[in-house]
Amino acid sequence: MNDRMTASVLHAIHDVRLEQIEIPTLDPDQVLVEIAAVGVCGSDVHYFEHGRIGDFIVDAPMVLGHEASGRIARVGSAVDPSRIGERVSIEPQRSCRRCEQCKHGRYNLCPSIEFYATPPIDGSFAGYAAIQEDFAHTIPDNVSFESAALCEPLSVGIWTNQKAEVGPGSSILIAGAGPIGIVIAQTARAFGASRIVVSDPAPERRELAARFGATDVVDPLSGALGIEPVDVFVDASGNPRAIRDGILLVKRAGRAVLVGMGAPDVELPVGRIQNYEILVTGVFRYANTWPLAIDMIARGVVDLDSMVTGRFDLEHVEEALASTADPRTVKSLVVPGSLLD
Amino acid sequence: MNDRMTASVLHAIHDVRLEQIEIPTLDPDQVLVEIAAVGVCGSDVHYFEHGRIGDFIVDAPMVLGHEASGRIARVGSAVDPSRIGERVSIEPQRSCRRCEQCKHGRYNLCPSIEFYATPPIDGSFAGYAAIQEDFAHTIPDNVSFESAALCEPLSVGIWTNQKAEVGPGSSILIAGAGPIGIVIAQTARAFGASRIVVSDPAPERRELAARFGATDVVDPLSGALGIEPVDVFVDASGNPRAIRDGILLVKRAGRAVLVGMGAPDVELPVGRIQNYEILVTGVFRYANTWPLAIDMIARGVVDLDSMVTGRFDLEHVEEALASTADPRTVKSLVVPGSLLD
Amino acid sequence: MNDRMTASVLHAIHDVRLEQIEIPTLDPDQVLVEIAAVGVCGSDVHYFEHGRIGDFIVDAPMVLGHEASGRIARVGSAVDPSRIGERVSIEPQRSCRRCEQCKHGRYNLCPSIEFYATPPIDGSFAGYAAIQEDFAHTIPDNVSFESAALCEPLSVGIWTNQKAEVGPGSSILIAGAGPIGIVIAQTARAFGASRIVVSDPAPERRELAARFGATDVVDPLSGALGIEPVDVFVDASGNPRAIRDGILLVKRAGRAVLVGMGAPDVELPVGRIQNYEILVTGVFRYANTWPLAIDMIARGVVDLDSMVTGRFDLEHVEEALASTADPRTVKSLVVPGSLLD
Amino acid sequence: MNDRMTASVLHAIHDVRLEQIEIPTLDPDQVLVEIAAVGVCGSDVHYFEHGRIGDFIVDAPMVLGHEASGRIARVGSAVDPSRIGERVSIEPQRSCRRCEQCKHGRYNLCPSIEFYATPPIDGSFAGYAAIQEDFAHTIPDNVSFESAALCEPLSVGIWTNQKAEVGPGSSILIAGAGPIGIVIAQTARAFGASRIVVSDPAPERRELAARFGATDVVDPLSGALGIEPVDVFVDASGNPRAIRDGILLVKRAGRAVLVGMGAPDVELPVGRIQNYEILVTGVFRYANTWPLAIDMIARGVVDLDSMVTGRFDLEHVEEALASTADPRTVKSLVVPGSLLD
Repeated sequence: MNDRMTASVLHAIHDVRLEQIEIPTLDPDQVLVEIAAVGVCGSDVHYFEHGRIGDFIVDAPMVLGHEASGRIARVGSAVDPSRIGERVSIEPQRSCRRCEQCKHGRYNLCPSIEFYATPPIDGSFAGYAAIQEDFAHTIPDNVSFESAALCEPLSVGIWTNQKAEVGPGSSILIAGAGPIGIVIAQTARAFGASRIVVSDPAPERRELAARFGATDVVDPLSGALGIEPVDVFVDASGNPRAIRDGILLVKRAGRAVLVGMGAPDVELPVGRIQNYEILVTGVFRYANTWPLAIDMIARGVVDLDSMVTGRFDLEHVEEALASTADPRTVKSLVVPGSLLD
Repeated sequence: MNDRMTASVLHAIHDVRLEQIEIPTLDPDQVLVEIAAVGVCGSDVHYFEHGRIGDFIVDAPMVLGHEASGRIARVGSAVDPSRIGERVSIEPQRSCRRCEQCKHGRYNLCPSIEFYATPPIDGSFAGYAAIQEDFAHTIPDNVSFESAALCEPLSVGIWTNQKAEVGPGSSILIAGAGPIGIVIAQTARAFGASRIVVSDPAPERRELAARFGATDVVDPLSGALGIEPVDVFVDASGNPRAIRDGILLVKRAGRAVLVGMGAPDVELPVGRIQNYEILVTGVFRYANTWPLAIDMIARGVVDLDSMVTGRFDLEHVEEALASTADPRTVKSLVVPGSLLD
Repeated sequence: MNDRMTASVLHAIHDVRLEQIEIPTLDPDQVLVEIAAVGVCGSDVHYFEHGRIGDFIVDAPMVLGHEASGRIARVGSAVDPSRIGERVSIEPQRSCRRCEQCKHGRYNLCPSIEFYATPPIDGSFAGYAAIQEDFAHTIPDNVSFESAALCEPLSVGIWTNQKAEVGPGSSILIAGAGPIGIVIAQTARAFGASRIVVSDPAPERRELAARFGATDVVDPLSGALGIEPVDVFVDASGNPRAIRDGILLVKRAGRAVLVGMGAPDVELPVGRIQNYEILVTGVFRYANTWPLAIDMIARGVVDLDSMVTGRFDLEHVEEALASTADPRTVKSLVVPGSLLD
Repeated sequence: MNDRMTASVLHAIHDVRLEQIEIPTLDPDQVLVEIAAVGVCGSDVHYFEHGRIGDFIVDAPMVLGHEASGRIARVGSAVDPSRIGERVSIEPQRSCRRCEQCKHGRYNLCPSIEFYATPPIDGSFAGYAAIQEDFAHTIPDNVSFESAALCEPLSVGIWTNQKAEVGPGSSILIAGAGPIGIVIAQTARAFGASRIVVSDPAPERRELAARFGATDVVDPLSGALGIEPVDVFVDASGNPRAIRDGILLVKRAGRAVLVGMGAPDVELPVGRIQNYEILVTGVFRYANTWPLAIDMIARGVVDLDSMVTGRFDLEHVEEALASTADPRTVKSLVVPGSLLD
């Protein structure tokens, strides 16, 4: 194994290039993972098309991709070498471990957090990526590399359902049947929710939702949603109208969790939030979700493999990014090497 | 004691009349309270000036006033007669006790709740009022009737601080130094908060806040608030700008509780709520707060007596309502009978 | 329908008699339920054999049986008559609705609680039983009367898992594979637990546990349990040794819930509870579990029908009670009338 | 500053020696603290007298003392040198930061925790001690070095009250008026508890408790405690009888927290724990308590300075240890250098 690798590097808007770059050097507590599969996320597409997300600006070449799995190829000096060869799912973040947020167990809110494919941190559309050893989560044999890559969106689903206090018997309305809406629905079902309503204007998306866990699907464009009030509303659309309509369907003492990224400011039905004492919050990634994500995949209570609708090698990252616009796409994977063979 | 009493009855906008009306008859589980003192609340003023609050419309004569104390004069057939003579603070609500909300301990959210001075339920600007016996809370000798009447706004302060998870060492920003802002500040201090910042554009109000528990006061009109981020923001102003500015000052994993009544829809900084995983909610009255309210008054950790700036008899309810517009007023009381003498 | 009914009445130890007694008269908020099926519980057997449980002494004739379902035959004056004919599961308790415990949503802890078949309250080994209307829970068509009767032990399973904070991915050790151990295991599975270990010395019982949700079964008499530490230990055996061994298998910050009734005082490994900050608690019946219990049965995530191993009419209550000693018995039902036909 | 320091080293039971030993070398993230004051704790005495606590055995020379304050004298290579000179309180533990417990915010339960004066980790009866920089908590000018040393027992008080959910209006019974019982009482008062009953057989101790926050004191040897049931019982005595009597005084849904170290196995009233659904747990040190501890001292809501009843230099560590047996002693300090002058 030499010290260079192939990577897909974003240089500017609509400009990704296949290049040979340095394999990351390892801190003592890191491992180097040979990448097997990487899910393509909306944020990758957004950086590709706009060069920024909010205050995060791509002002130097950067590797995209943060939903990754692979096999440990090297270990840092403080890591047990017996881990070499392990199949792992990467939790693509690095917290400081010592601030107030970290020490309270909320490391996703660490102000110094570093995250794959968020400037200036490189992601995993590459032959290899480095990660702290405790963020390289071992997967059992019955978890595929494809599913392991999708532990990342599944973690969003887990974190969302945890914040929403979804549990046995819960009713939940999810606005938006994109990949995130679908993993949220799957997770809600695995968490014991009784009624899982997914709202999406696209009929293909509603079909997908029904296939992946929704007990009911509704078209938000057909007038009133016409559903019974729910314990929990989750927005996975970023659409202000969907957010408003969703909150108005939450029962007294219910929860609303805003996952979708939309405008920074949104008009909310505050009078209703007050009168019903609805808890409203959002999610920022996740913390401590990987063990459960892997367990859920291994037990078969969620099905991520079936969500994969396309595979692209590193030469075709641009096509992979473009594929997400196709309504038939659920999840596209970038496959940097030959581990999936 | 005969069966009629004097009451101040609201007939229409700006039309309150002193009348002789029937003393309420008692259900078996009720007590009749001879009213000692009644705090004047913004909602009383709102009904007087607008004839409605939201969907609650005064379309028949109604007695205003819901912050009340007094002495038990009669008891229903199922109540121990030895309670006659007890000094009590009235929790002015009646829940069904059997719906999902009631049985989970959230009786304030009971869809069938009845509340004093909320159409069509009469309030307590009257000689007597009826209440379920377990909502007539006995007060010890060292709690005055004036303070006992103000257990109601104090309960808003308690409920708000509980929802906001204010505890030892918390930092809190309160927008609005009206009576509710002031009881929230007093309660925060009693709950152990370290830093209590109150924001109000009126200098008299800021002085009051400083007197009643604020560790810092700020003028929101003087540009940026210039304060360190806080664990908790509470809006007691109803002002959209204050709400927005306040939420932007909340730390990661902090809470924002919206108490003030304003527009039904308000633009909130959703991007920040997501990135910082801020919990946003509102309060709808309170549940199970009276025992603590009375305990706090009795222990002297809040001072409600000093908040009383005016007393009015039933003949002067209109003046009592008008007095709330005076910036020197903190809390006006209506004193229906002679129990305070 | 006349005003007398057949009932099995416990007069003294080992003395149950079939008698014609008065059909209960109804309070305004009650309904009269024609009984379809009644599960036989260990407490029924205990009263039959010992005439008492702790401080509750059978000193007057009493009807046993508290796990009941049926059809509403009459309604009290304050109940909507359209409920007549509804198929219901009975939550066999009556709380005062106004004490501190009730108003906080913990009505099972109401000091004035009345409970079926707990002296001096009659139970449901009878043609009819009265219950408050909000404790007569409507069941859908796909829930059998047999399962509806067993909502009661299922509620113990739900309450236990809720107290133990069992959720997706949890590991749990259950000591005792009696009917309660089995519903706890079934509920844990429905709540998403990954690893469900049941310990019982009887091989038939271990087989049952494996059939009803356990992922592993162990024999406590074969030396060390030899299992990995668990998030949660639940004792459903009442055996001091099982309790001790179980707590020592709980992970740091785990929970131990003591369900089984045994000696009033038990030696616990307090040093371990301290060093691992284990939460230890017990359950006293349940509160607010029926809606979820019915939902779980209706969705098929638990199987109560298959737990029924014997049916007995009112003439054979003594045989029904005796049947619980047979290790092949899972759950015996008393069937007072003809609703099951 | 050279590389050797004076330290009091425990070699064997009853054998402490004043020696010149190496000043600790620093890891990159550590600071070296010149020790100002060190509280003497019961565990120090226990190691001195018995050479072990449970499985922790002093089998090599070790420095005692873990309640320490001082001034930063040197910093590791990764620490901002501007911290040199800061007055700090030492949180005397070092967690791995990467295990399941650490990443959930429960770093006190880290299986790899290292703790001052717990074999084989040296403590702070010495001129200097090393600690991770984020466990060296800066103190403001109005917090004395004496109080800063006692942040450690205060942290036990905070953690206990947090576990016990003590808050405004709580009632609490504390068994044992040693230094820990007293800080628990002080903390309960600062947390808003209304009724704080302390039980101790020694009249001097009861007087101390009354001086430091108890609202009532009782003598457990005078028969029944004769007090009203409480929300919370805390054992700070380790006495089985006190534990049992205390739990029997807890109200329904109350909490019992076992802090005192006694026998590893204790008979508990399990029947009552079940019937009342009492939560029982223990504390193992603390996590994330220092910021609040310092804030409470700085605000004057606890008084630690007045608890100091004796000061001893390093030559007199043996006398310091012995002084704890004197019932007039509240807290003895070891003062290694001249920072207190």
